[in-house]
Amino acid sequence: MSPLNETHDPRLQSWVESANVENNGFPIQNLPFAIFRPRAGTQNFRPGVAIGDKIVDLAALAQKTPFSGKAAQALAACKGSRLNALMGLGHEHWSALRLALSGALRAGAAEQGLIEPMLIRQSEAEFDVPAQIGDYTDFYISIHHATAVGKLFRPDNPLLPNYKWLPIGYHGRASSIGVSGQAFHRPVGQTRPAAEGASPGFGPCQRLDYELELGVFVGQGNTQGERINIAQAESHVFGLCILNDWSARDIQAWEYQPLGPFLAKNFASTISPWIVTLEALAPFRLPFTRAASDPQPLPYLSSTENSATGAFDIGLEVRITTAQSRAAGAKPALLAQSNFKDAYWNIAQLLAHHTVNGCNLQAGDMLGTGTLSSPGPDRAGSLLELNQGGKNPVKLPWGEQRVFLQDNDEIILQARCEKPGYPTISLGECAGTILPAKPI
Amino acid sequence: MSPLNETHDPRLQSWVESANVENNGFPIQNLPFAIFRPRAGTQNFRPGVAIGDKIVDLAALAQKTPFSGKAAQALAACKGSRLNALMGLGHEHWSALRLALSGALRAGAAEQGLIEPMLIRQSEAEFDVPAQIGDYTDFYISIHHATAVGKLFRPDNPLLPNYKWLPIGYHGRASSIGVSGQAFHRPVGQTRPAAEGASPGFGPCQRLDYELELGVFVGQGNTQGERINIAQAESHVFGLCILNDWSARDIQAWEYQPLGPFLAKNFASTISPWIVTLEALAPFRLPFTRAASDPQPLPYLSSTENSATGAFDIGLEVRITTAQSRAAGAKPALLAQSNFKDAYWNIAQLLAHHTVNGCNLQAGDMLGTGTLSSPGPDRAGSLLELNQGGKNPVKLPWGEQRVFLQDNDEIILQARCEKPGYPTISLGECAGTILPAKPI
Repeated sequence: MSPLNETHDPRLQSWVESANVENNGFPIQNLPFAIFRPRAGTQNFRPGVAIGDKIVDLAALAQKTPFSGKAAQALAACKGSRLNALMGLGHEHWSALRLALSGALRAGAAEQGLIEPMLIRQSEAEFDVPAQIGDYTDFYISIHHATAVGKLFRPDNPLLPNYKWLPIGYHGRASSIGVSGQAFHRPVGQTRPAAEGASPGFGPCQRLDYELELGVFVGQGNTQGERINIAQAESHVFGLCILNDWSARDIQAWEYQPLGPFLAKNFASTISPWIVTLEALAPFRLPFTRAASDPQPLPYLSSTENSATGAFDIGLEVRITTAQSRAAGAKPALLAQSNFKDAYWNIAQLLAHHTVNGCNLQAGDMLGTGTLSSPGPDRAGSLLELNQGGKNPVKLPWGEQRVFLQDNDEIILQARCEKPGYPTISLGECAGTILPAKPI
Repeated sequence: MSPLNETHDPRLQSWVESANVENNGFPIQNLPFAIFRPRAGTQNFRPGVAIGDKIVDLAALAQKTPFSGKAAQALAACKGSRLNALMGLGHEHWSALRLALSGALRAGAAEQGLIEPMLIRQSEAEFDVPAQIGDYTDFYISIHHATAVGKLFRPDNPLLPNYKWLPIGYHGRASSIGVSGQAFHRPVGQTRPAAEGASPGFGPCQRLDYELELGVFVGQGNTQGERINIAQAESHVFGLCILNDWSARDIQAWEYQPLGPFLAKNFASTISPWIVTLEALAPFRLPFTRAASDPQPLPYLSSTENSATGAFDIGLEVRITTAQSRAAGAKPALLAQSNFKDAYWNIAQLLAHHTVNGCNLQAGDMLGTGTLSSPGPDRAGSLLELNQGGKNPVKLPWGEQRVFLQDNDEIILQARCEKPGYPTISLGECAGTILPAKPI
């Protein structure tokens, strides 16, 4: 991956004042992309880039052709209501556009007069799913999550033998992915019979859960039959968002053998609007290491550079509000914190594995990480783990408790990168609300 | 579903003479849709309808606006390089277009002079995937297949307890679906370690198999959160094609726990170019019944009409050619025959189940049936069943034998409906060839 460059200089300030406020999350070092439109009026959705509490309308900027070379080509792809065209151009174009935007938004930039009229307040915008997601794959890369869930089923042997050899993944549903703010009806379905030979249960899900994940957006894909080498894998990644892979645990327990989760997952998945590029995340890279006692990855899942820089320090948080807490004006309650750096597999490995058989990835495809739990029972990315399989309710500060989610509960996921001497890089938030089940 | 109408009259003849030849498969009673272009030249892919050994260029016909009402609206949607717009209009439009095309292609029709210049020989056309497939779901609806495969793993308890209560399904990969004629490289991947604790194997798949399936194309979808009632489910189906869900058995055995098949399936799936509408298949409906000793479907999976007419009598065949057989000029060898009517779940049930949790289907989505095996060891839809888990090689008439597929083998799937007094309705064929693995 490209080394740090001038866009990462922590001293950079923007002429958009809100971008310079400490810990605002969208400083000039971030520059994430989304699809948005002004909430008022009837304008079309279009691409934008965040700066402070504003959004630059990239479709409007493209009409003024302020850049040259690859940056101009990349900006010209910022039209229509999806980011797929920009994503498909590749990392040199994304990087050129980032550099040009960084220059144009910098304090003292000549472009201030041109761009200032193209700013929209984030608080006055609505967002859409940022790409046409051709295929959505979900992985299972947190060994802490896999172990905790495995323990519920197999106390003596929680991890299956394949776990440390390959990143377990399966195909998800693309059509039901919505953007932050999504509200969906509690799913209805079959559940395990109360006794062997009895009829299964049927009705609204009783064990509805969230899953705290990140989504990896594929930029340039690969031709069917061609593998993506791990050394080039990250150059195919456009960026990351936050993902809530809502899960109906009781439906899943009955349906998932032998072919995996289906209706337990495909009723809704929610993502954050902003895609933060890998380049913006570069200051938060960490070595990717494994215990010497663990099997080392096979050669197609390993590279020197990936071992040196393949992990990312991204802090994750889950909060909840309920009908009661909102009526009382209470702040959202923190359910758990975890970190992407604790995952057992990394981004480059996911792409190398996904394509080792010749499977073709396409611009706009999304790879979910799977639930990102960190070590320790309080740092889990799902209620199923926090409640220890449904046994221990989670207490909320306003007096309620939850085993699983209730109607009108709202789950808010947040992610951000922090370190001393560098501005906070936010991935924004991913909120979703459960509506009552539709009558059967 | 709509009853039989004048388009089903077995006495109808076309002014396209080849459509009147006995058993040609594409009589005027069929009228399936595809996306094609003339092989010579540089024209774009466009929608077409088959008649005899010809194709009517529907994009060209649409420019002449020969029809009125819903038929005209449906024909106007026959543009671009995918059928999604036509699919999204709904069954009344499809039916109106079928009636109009049946009239215009009938012997003595006034439209003969208009349409004759728009005919292209099927043998001079090339085809593309007929729809943008937003999501691909694969089911597992043959109890004979599920039992045979289950026996290999659990001889005493082949069928899992959920099988007779819900149609097991999982999400597949849309990006790697290709049209008949697809050639793909043998997938490479990890396989189960030879001994517990050893490293997994890694290399070209050694147990490559085909799966004989049908693909169900969704026409009108449903809004997220809204269920499709079983009584209306078939009206959401545009039609059927043939599907080969190629499977790497050794990769699957190692990767599939706990979340299902992934790289074992997503390297390639092949479909036939022609989509035969449910209306064209109406004369081949059968009652859909279950043994009284089996659990009857839950109410959301059951309707009186579905029990009376929910099954289809569609004959299926698998043939193979090899490098040796083609060099010798030998005819493709029949591997097995089966029939869609032997499936345990039917089309309406698949849609009702898929949406019971609010999952939204979209125009162009494809649902695979899963391997369609009929009763009896010789009537299986995969090599894994014919070879009894890899133990008994299948003998080919030219002296070769196969346990699993070899490089340069070609698998040809065919499907057709036949009954006395009615013209044969063909679903065409679905051919695919295995190329050697790419060097690792």
